[in-house]
Amino acid sequence: MKQITYFTSQPGDPSPLTKQFLRVVRFNEIDPMGIMWHGHYPSYLEDARMALGNALGLGYQDFYDHGILIPVRKMHIDYLAPLKFAQPYQIEARLFYTEAARLNYDFTIYDENHRIMTRAYSIQLMVDKNENLLFEWPEFTQNFLKKWKSGKINLQ
Amino acid sequence: MKQITYFTSQPGDPSPLTKQFLRVVRFNEIDPMGIMWHGHYPSYLEDARMALGNALGLGYQDFYDHGILIPVRKMHIDYLAPLKFAQPYQIEARLFYTEAARLNYDFTIYDENHRIMTRAYSIQLMVDKNENLLFEWPEFTQNFLKKWKSGKINLQ
Amino acid sequence: MKQITYFTSQPGDPSPLTKQFLRVVRFNEIDPMGIMWHGHYPSYLEDARMALGNALGLGYQDFYDHGILIPVRKMHIDYLAPLKFAQPYQIEARLFYTEAARLNYDFTIYDENHRIMTRAYSIQLMVDKNENLLFEWPEFTQNFLKKWKSGKINLQ
Amino acid sequence: MKQITYFTSQPGDPSPLTKQFLRVVRFNEIDPMGIMWHGHYPSYLEDARMALGNALGLGYQDFYDHGILIPVRKMHIDYLAPLKFAQPYQIEARLFYTEAARLNYDFTIYDENHRIMTRAYSIQLMVDKNENLLFEWPEFTQNFLKKWKSGKINLQ
Repeated sequence: MKQITYFTSQPGDPSPLTKQFLRVVRFNEIDPMGIMWHGHYPSYLEDARMALGNALGLGYQDFYDHGILIPVRKMHIDYLAPLKFAQPYQIEARLFYTEAARLNYDFTIYDENHRIMTRAYSIQLMVDKNENLLFEWPEFTQNFLKKWKSGKINLQ
Repeated sequence: MKQITYFTSQPGDPSPLTKQFLRVVRFNEIDPMGIMWHGHYPSYLEDARMALGNALGLGYQDFYDHGILIPVRKMHIDYLAPLKFAQPYQIEARLFYTEAARLNYDFTIYDENHRIMTRAYSIQLMVDKNENLLFEWPEFTQNFLKKWKSGKINLQ
Repeated sequence: MKQITYFTSQPGDPSPLTKQFLRVVRFNEIDPMGIMWHGHYPSYLEDARMALGNALGLGYQDFYDHGILIPVRKMHIDYLAPLKFAQPYQIEARLFYTEAARLNYDFTIYDENHRIMTRAYSIQLMVDKNENLLFEWPEFTQNFLKKWKSGKINLQ
Repeated sequence: MKQITYFTSQPGDPSPLTKQFLRVVRFNEIDPMGIMWHGHYPSYLEDARMALGNALGLGYQDFYDHGILIPVRKMHIDYLAPLKFAQPYQIEARLFYTEAARLNYDFTIYDENHRIMTRAYSIQLMVDKNENLLFEWPEFTQNFLKKWKSGKINLQ
């Protein structure tokens, strides 16, 4: 199906970091058109984003413990094919490397036959508690970034 | 603030049709960062879209009565500034003219000082009950489209 | 229809204080049975409770400004008749007088013909920021309680 | 903690059927008081109810396939202790035997130390597609009921 690319990696950038998880469409998520209501997706993209972020030490709590908030600045969803009641699906989140102080995630939702159903991305900024924008990744993430760049992060 | 343009009008196209409504951020909509959770916006964009669609005879029910579903194919949200608890805001929905069989809405959220807080758009396709994509606006909308094109739709 | 009484007034107690507001069932609130999903009601009961609480100076923010939280301890809903898509309805919230340090609200949802569709109640406790339960209404509410008891609160 | 009993078994009734599942409080479920918002619980009670119902052949789809809807008639929740962000918890659903044509579920939520955090119940009616109430369990459930009564249902 559709080949959609939201973020591009620069030469020398490490590969995106990735994590998958499984879900099933719930009863109350079905809208009157018989498909998963489009407004429920952001919540499950967030689940995937948080699962990956937490695994990397880049979760909401990790930033918050260092006085930093990471609000969503941009969200985009391509609904390529609808999900039906009780349908199992897999969400894959990928975090893209960037020098800019932001979290660039993209997402793919697959059905049980590994067909692509949805593609999406989100961009999060980093702000301190006075709502000042950060222009560099904070101190506490530097070690992680170094390891990532040298290919030493291994999530699988 | 940011000038964002999602849809472009062709020469000869009529102006977008527009409708506003007012809301207040609710208690349970605030996330742990103290701002309206980004995942709640699609629901209020939908409210605005439906209010405008219904006023024009282009609501879910209008299409459904003619055997047509109008699933959301694409949604994009730019969160420019956060909304806080109990903050009043205005949502403006605009429907853009297009010959293609789709509903192109964009949205602006303003705070109480008419500052732009959010910009967004959604694209809906038209499909019949066998999930075949429509390539032309259906018969029942032709009168409406003609009136729109000749500048005779007046919502205010 | 059903006569349901959740709270009883003692002799000498002032009448409950009450407020109504109007809503319409939204597209995404309909479940696969074609009725408003039962899990959406708590959110609208809360809207009604907050509208009344705020009007009385007993809202979340009012308590919070005095270091007090008012968590929901109990919620009960009787779904007597279902609400359908786009159906208008009225929610009425009533706050019952009690000497105990709690907020006892009950709720009635009416359809457009003033038929009772839903009956519900909620009980909220008052706790300070160390999670200690309050056994008396806090100082800042005493004036309000006195006025209420002497029949001087008039919301209509 | 609190011993709460919502449903009572008659002499000769088989034991309730039960199923547990695990969850973690999500970021967007936290309200401004720092606890899981009370309005999110119905959705997770439903998950537990559906997991158990499906395992027994008594799910929404099972009834629907026989022309029967099972709307929630009553829901009651006792919030005994709050759940915090990222806190793991266990939901246990139990289906109680009754001759009446209804589904009587109760629910217990435990924290990671098996402390009771929440108790709840729901009652569902059975109605046919003309909205007529059923007074007896439908034909397709009779085998199941017989097996249950004779102690032959084993979910663990």
